[in-house]
Amino acid sequence: MTHSFLMIGQSNMAGRGFLKDVPPILDEKIKMLRNGRWQMMAEPINFDRPTSGISLAATFASSWRLFHNQEDDIGLIPCADGGTSLDDWSVEGALFQNAIFQAKAAQKISTLSGILWHQGESDSNGQKHRLYIQKLNHIIQTLRQELNTPDIPLIIGGLGSFLQDGIYGQYFNEHKEVDTALQEFAKDNEHCFFVSTEGLTANPDNIHFDAVSQRKFGIRYFRAFEQKTDILGALADEDHIVEIINNRPLTKNEKNEMLQYQLAMGIITTEEFQTQLAIIH
Amino acid sequence: MTHSFLMIGQSNMAGRGFLKDVPPILDEKIKMLRNGRWQMMAEPINFDRPTSGISLAATFASSWRLFHNQEDDIGLIPCADGGTSLDDWSVEGALFQNAIFQAKAAQKISTLSGILWHQGESDSNGQKHRLYIQKLNHIIQTLRQELNTPDIPLIIGGLGSFLQDGIYGQYFNEHKEVDTALQEFAKDNEHCFFVSTEGLTANPDNIHFDAVSQRKFGIRYFRAFEQKTDILGALADEDHIVEIINNRPLTKNEKNEMLQYQLAMGIITTEEFQTQLAIIH
Repeated sequence: MTHSFLMIGQSNMAGRGFLKDVPPILDEKIKMLRNGRWQMMAEPINFDRPTSGISLAATFASSWRLFHNQEDDIGLIPCADGGTSLDDWSVEGALFQNAIFQAKAAQKISTLSGILWHQGESDSNGQKHRLYIQKLNHIIQTLRQELNTPDIPLIIGGLGSFLQDGIYGQYFNEHKEVDTALQEFAKDNEHCFFVSTEGLTANPDNIHFDAVSQRKFGIRYFRAFEQKTDILGALADEDHIVEIINNRPLTKNEKNEMLQYQLAMGIITTEEFQTQLAIIH
Repeated sequence: MTHSFLMIGQSNMAGRGFLKDVPPILDEKIKMLRNGRWQMMAEPINFDRPTSGISLAATFASSWRLFHNQEDDIGLIPCADGGTSLDDWSVEGALFQNAIFQAKAAQKISTLSGILWHQGESDSNGQKHRLYIQKLNHIIQTLRQELNTPDIPLIIGGLGSFLQDGIYGQYFNEHKEVDTALQEFAKDNEHCFFVSTEGLTANPDNIHFDAVSQRKFGIRYFRAFEQKTDILGALADEDHIVEIINNRPLTKNEKNEMLQYQLAMGIITTEEFQTQLAIIH
């Protein structure tokens, strides 16, 4: 059985953490949707742009595996899109329609179990925050309706505190107001929980959470899902959980997958591949 | 106006050429579909697997721009999926349904102008070639019907001559029979043209066309589309055309896009970014 989670929002849900900054996460029981079918997860999961990288979804899924369910598979449905505002996510638009199609495709082969939302940077100027709750409400209500999942948990994260520090800071001068709107939205909506970005840091662009922060953010998103509560600060054990995830020994299938990848990418020769394949255990 | 092309089939349509082996192609008038909207093309276009790389689509599009239409945009719709057989592409299945959804999404914002097909490796054993024409026929007929494009050109490429040379060669022992089926299919179907793989070479895995070959293959696909004819061997001018494509000077927008990418990826500092942005022309 597979339990699936829809990833929607803008670039920080798609993920822009640098791949080189953290160890890869390989787990044969974590899948991602590709062309309507499950494939073993490999980052970047949500390849909306060539800059796509580490997102919060991998450690969300790893935590789910560690603390919630060891038996079943977890599936990630990547539909986030960089630079998009709430108006881009209007229910008649291409992004929303794509998310509905992908989620319905996943529902044929899994139980849709949660929605992960991160968005708001593109609504952080020009007083757009004033309509944020109202617009998000309509999007989420329509989504729940169309997917026939009225009580599905929705986890929403706050915005980075660094947004005004970069060269594009002027575009984010109302990020605190959007953050407040996200918190209020979670307060006023059943089955919706807010996740703090306390202590999370950015890439040099001061727009995107760095890879190390995305790893922590995913664990906070999971904790909110698991405990059905807002997470209002850093978790005392988040670094420890990242460590547990990174130190998980690979299964035979995962080692095999890694070798196949290295062969296909020309990283190892066919001779090295065959030698190593023979000693996998 | 945008003219769009649907990419379907298995890994050699998705593309597995190594990114490091060829210069990148950047062209602001070549787009790719992401979440139902057009984005400037960047390879890998068809990110079905972590091994995805250079496909034939980029030089197909560049040739279209060079020789066919300088005014309009061209849009690529990536729906190919590695390792898939014709049975995986059955019209009730997830891959076909996804391709229909993506193509229809593209039709809302472009004119669907062609279908690029490359598939057959996964039908190259166990006598599957005997039903190849019949199955492909049903897939293509249904596709044309559902997209309401009865006369849309379909370009189909042959299989690599190298398939039996690798460590997985045993799985491809009937690749010549599939190649013959593809040629016959093109002969018997209106608006369908076959493209030869003469002289094209493989990655070390002897399964996937290498990046240099994919660049040539795309030009052959375009020539078949443009001349409405089978391309039965290498083109005398294909290396020259690759050169023209590689030597095309970047526009201001493309240089800007490249700088944004380098900033986002941490390749250049914000200071370098701002210095270089100021001197773009």
